[in-house]
Amino acid sequence: MIDRLNQRIRELDAPVVVGLDPMLKYVPEPIQKQAFAEQGETLEGAAEAIWQFNKGIVDAICDLVPAVKPQVAMYEQFGVPGMAAYQKTIGYCKQKGLVVIGDVKRGDIGSTSEAYAVGHLGHVQVGSQSLSAFDEDFATVNPYLGSDGIRPFLEVCQKEKKGIFVLVKTSNPSSGEFQDRLIDGRPLYEWVGEQVARWGQEAMGEGGYSYVGAVVGATYPEMGKVLRKIMPKTCILVPGYGAQGGKAADLAPYFNEDGLGAIVNSSRGIIAAYKQEKYAQFGPEHFGDAARQAALDMIADLKTIR
Amino acid sequence: MIDRLNQRIRELDAPVVVGLDPMLKYVPEPIQKQAFAEQGETLEGAAEAIWQFNKGIVDAICDLVPAVKPQVAMYEQFGVPGMAAYQKTIGYCKQKGLVVIGDVKRGDIGSTSEAYAVGHLGHVQVGSQSLSAFDEDFATVNPYLGSDGIRPFLEVCQKEKKGIFVLVKTSNPSSGEFQDRLIDGRPLYEWVGEQVARWGQEAMGEGGYSYVGAVVGATYPEMGKVLRKIMPKTCILVPGYGAQGGKAADLAPYFNEDGLGAIVNSSRGIIAAYKQEKYAQFGPEHFGDAARQAALDMIADLKTIR
Repeated sequence: MIDRLNQRIRELDAPVVVGLDPMLKYVPEPIQKQAFAEQGETLEGAAEAIWQFNKGIVDAICDLVPAVKPQVAMYEQFGVPGMAAYQKTIGYCKQKGLVVIGDVKRGDIGSTSEAYAVGHLGHVQVGSQSLSAFDEDFATVNPYLGSDGIRPFLEVCQKEKKGIFVLVKTSNPSSGEFQDRLIDGRPLYEWVGEQVARWGQEAMGEGGYSYVGAVVGATYPEMGKVLRKIMPKTCILVPGYGAQGGKAADLAPYFNEDGLGAIVNSSRGIIAAYKQEKYAQFGPEHFGDAARQAALDMIADLKTIR
Repeated sequence: MIDRLNQRIRELDAPVVVGLDPMLKYVPEPIQKQAFAEQGETLEGAAEAIWQFNKGIVDAICDLVPAVKPQVAMYEQFGVPGMAAYQKTIGYCKQKGLVVIGDVKRGDIGSTSEAYAVGHLGHVQVGSQSLSAFDEDFATVNPYLGSDGIRPFLEVCQKEKKGIFVLVKTSNPSSGEFQDRLIDGRPLYEWVGEQVARWGQEAMGEGGYSYVGAVVGATYPEMGKVLRKIMPKTCILVPGYGAQGGKAADLAPYFNEDGLGAIVNSSRGIIAAYKQEKYAQFGPEHFGDAARQAALDMIADLKTIR
């Protein structure tokens, strides 16, 4: 799947992933009203609203970008109906040819980690049947529990040709509280990055990149530069561009010389573009067109540095 | 909710939580067969099997222990039907008077963390309605992203009188890979423990304990001793007893002098007791009775050290 992701990045010349984080407040009024009219102001109604919104976004951007990254929390908050919308969104995106990165940030150990791995990336055994559940192409994973948490994912990735992105240095202001603390003179995130590189060697794709990627926030470019060197064969998923303050100029160090090695995420900057002054002329009813224009602008912006 | 948890621990004289981690292989054949006959060898069939199994366990132990800890991964692996079984299990346990600790180990930032918090512990706004989704009493949370990930949970906890358990030192063999690394001469888990104590001060219950608990594995008693001192007002959730190798004698340092301050988890040691030689006489058809006896034995075992 890392090979397919890189192939699509090359074909579209767009190292861009659109974050499908459909907060209800991003969903235009008419879509919410319609969903609530059909299903009431219920979890089902909310799930229907975000699903219809996602569909509009995906239809508008699916020929421009290689991948989407649904943030499961935005679905999980609506309980079981929300999880059904998550699954439906994944299926629809894959049908549209998009690579799907499930931003689940799961992390546990042994058989529990295995359960997450099979549930999100693999197949679960039920009697004589081998069934897939959420079936994303990639999942994000938390490293705090060490190798015991990662190995079950590696096994599933190798078997299913899928991948993970391990949190290394996150984009948020307080990410340094633990991640930046110095251990033998070097910050924790570097040690995690080294481990990601090691895990990655056990699961290499055919094009020189590993199934094991890393998450490194756009908001810390100096650290991104160091991590790029520590993890040369790792695809870096970069959150924090746009709304969180990361700029294209800062992102050059995240890429390798082959123009690959990083994929930059934008969520509300694209899906809620119609709410920005810059794209206000589209109006809420053309939220998809606004998202498309924002995606085109982001792709153009990233071309300036590659 | 921390006050209610402590009250139930006192009433039952049992600082015990039963982990509801229903792997299909723990579910006796006849229950699996019945579920598959009704719903096929499908995700729905698997979800029905684990729900029926859980019901049997909960009925057998609900008057003995204060709390249960469903491990969401074991449900999530069966997709949307699995999540429905998770929700049904939570509702049933609460109806039976049990405190429910959702072992979800979620961890993200800002609005995403908030979505997890409202989805698992609070209420989500849908139009004019304020709705609850999974509605556990406690949730486990990963600290790797720092305060940005924890604060949204604190806000929901304060509002809803619910709680979290933050991963500090996990019970698995590789937990030391990052958690034990020395920062200014002290291991990372101590720094996380100090932060847990600080976060906890912002959300104190009435009985001297905080809504913010910590996870510290039974398999590292020396570290448990240190962490007990660093976090005097923190309830420690202790995994790793029994099947993972932790013994009662090792657990004394996790408790405060008031006999509170820790709650010890056992999962397969109780729910799959019928598979152990010690409880084999019950037979798979009486898996609930075997679980009850195992819970009684664990409670007696822990009395030797308190």
